[in-house]
Order: sequence, then structure tokens, then C-alpha cells
Amino acid sequence: MTDKLIIFDTTLRDGEQSPGASMTKDEKLRIARQLERLKVDVIEAGFAASSNGDFEAVKAIADHIKDSTVCSLSRANDRDIARSAEALKGANRARIHTFIATSPLHMEKKLRMTPEQVLEQARLSVRYARNLVEDIEFSAEDGYRSEIDFLARVVEAVIKEGATTINIPDTVGYAIPELYGNFIKTLREKVPNSDKAIWSVHCHNDLGMAVANSLAGVKIGGARQVECTINGLGERAGNCSLEEIVMAVKTRRDYFGLDVNIDTTQIVPASRMVSQTTGFVVQPNKAVVGANAFAHASGIHQDGVLKARDTYEIMRAEDVGWSANKIVLGKLSGRNAFKQRLEELGIEMESETELNTAFAKFKELADRKSEIFDEDILALVSDESVTPEKEQYGLVALSQHSETGERPHARVVFTIDGKELVGEADGNGPVDASLKAIEQHVKSGAELLLYSVNAITSGSTESQGEVTVRLQHGGRVVNGVGADPDIVVASAKAYLSALNKLHSKADRVAAQG
Amino acid sequence: MTDKLIIFDTTLRDGEQSPGASMTKDEKLRIARQLERLKVDVIEAGFAASSNGDFEAVKAIADHIKDSTVCSLSRANDRDIARSAEALKGANRARIHTFIATSPLHMEKKLRMTPEQVLEQARLSVRYARNLVEDIEFSAEDGYRSEIDFLARVVEAVIKEGATTINIPDTVGYAIPELYGNFIKTLREKVPNSDKAIWSVHCHNDLGMAVANSLAGVKIGGARQVECTINGLGERAGNCSLEEIVMAVKTRRDYFGLDVNIDTTQIVPASRMVSQTTGFVVQPNKAVVGANAFAHASGIHQDGVLKARDTYEIMRAEDVGWSANKIVLGKLSGRNAFKQRLEELGIEMESETELNTAFAKFKELADRKSEIFDEDILALVSDESVTPEKEQYGLVALSQHSETGERPHARVVFTIDGKELVGEADGNGPVDASLKAIEQHVKSGAELLLYSVNAITSGSTESQGEVTVRLQHGGRVVNGVGADPDIVVASAKAYLSALNKLHSKADRVAAQG
Repeated sequence: MTDKLIIFDTTLRDGEQSPGASMTKDEKLRIARQLERLKVDVIEAGFAASSNGDFEAVKAIADHIKDSTVCSLSRANDRDIARSAEALKGANRARIHTFIATSPLHMEKKLRMTPEQVLEQARLSVRYARNLVEDIEFSAEDGYRSEIDFLARVVEAVIKEGATTINIPDTVGYAIPELYGNFIKTLREKVPNSDKAIWSVHCHNDLGMAVANSLAGVKIGGARQVECTINGLGERAGNCSLEEIVMAVKTRRDYFGLDVNIDTTQIVPASRMVSQTTGFVVQPNKAVVGANAFAHASGIHQDGVLKARDTYEIMRAEDVGWSANKIVLGKLSGRNAFKQRLEELGIEMESETELNTAFAKFKELADRKSEIFDEDILALVSDESVTPEKEQYGLVALSQHSETGERPHARVVFTIDGKELVGEADGNGPVDASLKAIEQHVKSGAELLLYSVNAITSGSTESQGEVTVRLQHGGRVVNGVGADPDIVVASAKAYLSALNKLHSKADRVAAQG
Repeated sequence: MTDKLIIFDTTLRDGEQSPGASMTKDEKLRIARQLERLKVDVIEAGFAASSNGDFEAVKAIADHIKDSTVCSLSRANDRDIARSAEALKGANRARIHTFIATSPLHMEKKLRMTPEQVLEQARLSVRYARNLVEDIEFSAEDGYRSEIDFLARVVEAVIKEGATTINIPDTVGYAIPELYGNFIKTLREKVPNSDKAIWSVHCHNDLGMAVANSLAGVKIGGARQVECTINGLGERAGNCSLEEIVMAVKTRRDYFGLDVNIDTTQIVPASRMVSQTTGFVVQPNKAVVGANAFAHASGIHQDGVLKARDTYEIMRAEDVGWSANKIVLGKLSGRNAFKQRLEELGIEMESETELNTAFAKFKELADRKSEIFDEDILALVSDESVTPEKEQYGLVALSQHSETGERPHARVVFTIDGKELVGEADGNGPVDASLKAIEQHVKSGAELLLYSVNAITSGSTESQGEVTVRLQHGGRVVNGVGADPDIVVASAKAYLSALNKLHSKADRVAAQG
């Protein structure tokens, strides 16, 4: 046991499993770089065996990240583990994470295996993985609902085979802090070689207690790794939030007595990047990273805060990276200033051509918007047309008109595989008309699951609108994000971006919680 | 001590204190009616002494709500308490809630009172309140950071004076479940007459643990009332979420052994109503009420769910009120069908004129949108122009045009105090141009803090856009919400609605957390 708490971020793996949160390789790499700046100890980069796309993303992250351990998830079989090892070849520090379910319900209904078969498969998988990589994490899926004596046998066996981290997830978000903490404690007491591994917790938020459960696993149970995601992203109600775990341990160091490695000033930038990339909004009353998290409304509170800051504040906004929007660039900024700002934001352009395309887009934006903020730059490079991955659809021009009492009308010029097409349509509103104009030629058959707009920077009607469109077709769900000062144009961009994803990414199998 | 857990909802008081969440009297009444359908035990309706607007809202709720206790907050002084009692006159069951801070920091820095002065004021206030109403709640603001022996003396004294509920808030969201639970337990042991009152918890979510802390206060501490809000609305990171508390107690009845009175099928409708009214979005990965809370993405999870539902589900979506959107009305629906649907949704029209206005708006919408959902109806009656409170600004007509390479242009016809005006302007986008066209005449000087759009119903590009605009001027923050199939029109409506609020509502002082 150490007095350091290991922060294991699984935004790119468990977070990405949220319906609609799938990300491209470039998006994942950008987020991984931000996680490295945040100084997370372990980045779970993906589930290499689940698809070629995931393999490539894990590989790119393993090749580029230097400071954090890079981890790939694998089911408990040789093929999955070998794929993970291959994807992780370039990593400075690589971890293979393998899992199998151990609860009676999951073993019987999902795996259709006996407990002894599960035990054997867990053992063999860790043995195989240990031949490939030193750092092995084993997860007992639905561990918290497992029979404790059986689970203790499994854990003892995999530690003997060389597992260095043992993770006991509350896969379905069913735990209560006191019960979960004591479960981990009792389990550790039942495992004779428990001190040979670091214990880890992985909690879901279905009853709103993922953070408290994780911390009980640490305080009562003696775990020293917490698995979490930025903004609590994840399936259903999501995972334990990284920002809440970290700030709880820091703010209540008197109680936990633990160090974390995190550079907390990178928390808000990480939150924004993940939210912008996935189109998953952060509600204003979200702890630490919500827009209101440090805002005081009521007269009495304001008075209190003015008289003594700590009457109502237990954390400082600047410590987690909240700062006023800085005007970073304008229309007179040159290519070098732009390039430098990209580097400060951790954005790497893969070629001069790509940089030139981005710079041209920047100049175009600066012509229409006098103040360019960091968020604008992030939106600009998030735009698929800057970093194209076999981009099929692109916007060329759009005109639209609406008038009370008449049907709104739109005319959209766009490309399909380089060929220019013109679509025209009426609709209920100018956005509806524009999307229908696109569908005139595309005929995607996709269902629109979500449409939302957020202003990228506040404080001015000059702000760009950032539109998120979520489409579903044939069982797949994709997000498209588009930004433009003209909300109708942003909507068309987002829609085309979603179509690009719908038609380009391979299907994938996925993983445990 | 009873085996029933009392659910005290403070969405309309502590929730409304979120910057930007202020509501009109009609909005509050509509939400109070939904809280009554939800069967909450106590509705904290407002802080009657803080403004005339709040007084009127508390009074309206006290006059209309029959099943739930209606509560008004008051500082610990006779004037506040008398105002609460007056506002509550019409209530079937009335509660006065009075509070004073008891922590050294708050007493010294904010109140500038000695502990003995605070004790005396608490005692006198409860004595005074008890002469007016039977049901008295006393809150020790920042109770969790108070010196426990002093706090025990205060609590003993106010129970002697007749306080029937004792609330110990974690005002700043600093607690940890184990510590908070034990604090309540120890405190109760130190108060000789502790069994004469029901104990209550009120937790904030700054470290993401409001729900777990509240439940520890119940399980370890023996509290039997939880104070909470819909969607966890509230200042900073918000309050304990009603939906999470209720579903945790229900799902883990094996552990808590407590009954709650709540009709859980009304949870999602309540969440939507609060979110639509305040413009505070609910993030997709919010527990219980987030759009993804019951969605399963990964192949393995889907497979598991198909094989046995409880492999990944601990609650059922339909139990908390998730259901497919129902087509309720269309263009052929008559006035009676419309009226009946309003009644089913708990919306009361105050006069035939108001009903006729709403019906006319409904027919107008039905001409443009073939399927009208419950959400559309809610948006329609949320529209200020249907239930006008001294409405100053109204939209008459709007036309706008945008085309790649040109400056977007808008022409807006609107009324100021019944007088028709025409504004024209260019802008960065059609929304920007429309708002500038309005500002040409209004010259509000307001700052735009937030602009967001959500589709009201999913599954179709025919959906209405619901726009939220948050404006700040002279230290006041207001929200305007507008809905229309045309996003630019919805934006203009939302902007005018925000201007109406900015220019009509009285300033207010506000309260503790």
C-alpha cells in the first residue's frame, strides 16, 4: 500500500462506449494528449481487438504518449490480448487490461460458463498476457455482485499468474459506499497474496454514488487506483468523474491523506475538449466543471463570499482551470502565431498541408468574427474538413430564407466524393430545410436522435454556434459537430460530419463496464 | 423515528437560486403542481420575504396545492417569519422554515454575531414562528462545519421552543458520507430532546457526493427527511437530486428499509418540466433522468441485456416515467381535446381568454407540424405570450436570409407595450442579425451569457427547436425560453421573453444553501 492514489482514466474506452460518444482516431489522440498534460497515471486508450479503428487509435496513442502508462482492454482470451500487445508496442509504459465476469448472473446468463471455467480462463489469460507485457490489470466484471469466496479464489489465482492490478468494478452502479468499501476490505482479507497487487475501483453512477463508492473503496477498502472519466462520461449514467474524485481527495486531504499526481489546472480544458468532441453537454450544475460550479447567485451568498471567500467556497475556480476567456488571436494574426497557439493548445498538425488548411479556415473565421478564443480554435480543428479521414461529404455553400407565414427554404451545395451537388428543399425551419436539401441526394435513411446548439464562447452575440447532430442508422449511432457563426451553416456542417462518420467507421464489438 | 423517509423538495427555493434559474409565478405554480403529482411530502415554495414576486409565488402555491405541505423559507427574524405565515395562509398544511448560521466562520464573518446572540435569535425566532404555524423547521446554516457542542445547544433550545424538524445542511458541499453520517449521529446523541423532532439532511454537490452524504445522514445518522431538488438544480454544483435519492432508497430497500411516498413514474416528466422552464439542460449521462441513463451501447452489454435484463439493469426505465413519445394531438384536434390534454398535463388556464389564446397557438403550430407531443404543448404554454404577466415585448413577424459569402440579414417586427416596431440588421448569422434587429429599438445593454438550442422531441427533423437565452444586466440574470419549428424565430421569441423578465421582475434578496 502506498500513499499515492493512481488515477486511471478510461474516457477513451468506457467513456466512448456511451451511445453517441464514439470518436475518431484523431479526436482520441487529441484527448490523450490532454490527459497527458493533466498528468493522469494511466490512459485506457481503447479496446484494440474490438475493431480496426480502435486498434489504430490505441496504437497512435501508444506511439505518441510519453508520460502516462497506455492501456488497452481485452477480453480474457489470447486473441484479444495479442491484439492489445501489438497495438501497445510503441508505448513507453504499456498495460494490458483483461477482464471476465465473475457474478453468478453474468457467468450463467451471459458467458454460459461454470465458475471453474471462468477461474481457469482468467488464470490462463493473465499467464498469456504476462508473457507479453509486465503491467497486467485484471478486472472481475460485475465483481461487486459476485460471490465473495469465489471471487477471492479468482483474484488469488490471477495474482499468482502475475496480475499487478486487481480491479473490482461495480458494473451496474448498484453499490452503497459503506457496503462497497467493506466488500473490498473483506475481499482483500480473504486473498492471501493481496499485498502483491494494487487494488482498483471502477464504479458506475446509476444511483448517483460513483464518486462516494470509489472513495469508500479507497478509504475503507484500501484500493489505491480509481478508474474514472472526464465529465463522468460513460454508458447509462456514466462512470465516476475524474474531476470530482481528484478534487475530493485534494480538498479533503485531512481525511484521505493521499497524493494524486494530477495537474488540476488542466481539468476544465480537458472537460471542454471532451464535451466539444463528443457533443455531450456538461450540465451547468455539474460539480467542478459545470458553468455554475463556481457561481454564486443569492444575495446572502454573494455577501458571504465578499466578506470571506471560504464561507461558501471550498475550492478555488482557478485551481481547476477556470479562467476568463482570453482573446488569443484576431484577423491580423499570422501563420506563426496561429501555429504557436495550436502548439500551446496541444494540437499537432500532421503535415504542412493540414496546417495550411487550418490556417485558411482560421483567416476565414477571423474575417467574420473579430475575437478568436481558444474554444473557437478547438472547434475549428475539430471540424472534420481540416483533418479529413477519408471524408466523403463536404459543404460548399448554403443559402436559406425564412419569413413568417411562408415555408422556409434552403439551397445547399455540397460534395459527395469530390463531386458537387445542389439540393433544394422546403422545411419547417431553415435547419430542417437545409438537412432535407442534403438528404435529397444522400438518402441516408438515418434517424435524427439529437440536435443541439451551444454558443462556443459566451458574452457576445458574435459567438459561434456549435451544433451537435446525432444520427442513428442500422444500429449505429454517430455524432457530428459543426461550428459557424451562422447556426444554419453550422447545422449543415454537423449533419455532413455525422454522415461522414456513419459511412466510414467500421462496426465494433465492445466491452465491460 | 419512523420507517418513512420524508421527501422535501426545494427546487422552487434553493433550486431557483441557481444563477439564471429564476422562474415566474406561473412557472413555479406549474412545477408545484407537478411536484404534487410526484407526491413529494413537502414543497419549499420560496422565500416569501425576499421579494414581492416570491411572496406572490408562495401564496399562489399555498392556495392551490392540496396534498403536499407547503413551506416558505425565512431568516431568523420576526419580519421574515410573519411574511412567510401570511403567504402560507391558504395552505392545507403550512410549514415555516427558519434558518441561521451556526458555524464559527459564518457567525463571525457573515453574521458578525457571537454564538450566544445566534442561540438567542434562533430561540426567539422559533418561538415567534410557533405562534403562527404548528409545523416549524429550523436549519443551522453551515451546520456541518459548526462546533458540535454549540450546535447541540442551539438544537436543544429550538426543539424546546417547538421546532418539529431539525435540518443540518452541508451548505458548502464539503462532507464525506462516513463523516457526515457520524456527525448527525453524534449530534443527535448530544441533544437530550432529539426524539421530539424529525431530523433532516440538506447536502450540496460540490464534490459530487450530495446523494451519498444525504443517505449516510439517513442510514448512520438516523435522519428521516431529505432535502433535494429535481435534476439536482441549485447554486454552484447544485443540491442533492430528488430522482437519485428516491431511486437509491427504492432500489436498495434491502439496505435502507425505508418507504418513500413518491410516484416514481412522475420523475421524468418533472425533470423535463424543470429543465424546459429553467433552460438548465440535463446532461445525457445524468443518473435516472439523463437521455442515456437507460441506453446500452456496447455490443457485450446489448447482448447481456437481451439474455437477461438484470445483467446490466438495476432499475426499469418505465418505473421512472420514461416512455415513448405519444402523439397526443394533431391539426384536426378540437378545443375540447386540447383542453382535456392540458388538464391531464396538470396545466390550468386561468381564464377562457387564456385558453383561447393557447388553442389558437396550438392550431397555428399544428398547421406547421403534423404531430404534436406533450413536450410541444408544455413549450407552447411556457411561452410567455400565452400566460402574460405584464408582457412588454412580443414578436409579430420575422424574415431573415443568409447566404455563403454575404452578411446574414434579418427584419423583425415586434411590439413594445403594444406598439409595433420594425428592426432590421445584419449579423454574423441569422440569429445574431435577428437579435441585433430587436436591440436596434430596445437598447437593453444586456449581456448574453448563454445561448442554447435543444430539439423538443427527437426522432424527426420536424421537431421544434427550443431556444434558451440567458441575459445579464445590472447584476440580474434572467432566462428566456422560446420554441418554434424555425430556430431563428424561436431565438427571437426567447430573446423577447428574456427582455420581458429583465424588465418586469423585482429584485430580490435570497437565502441560505
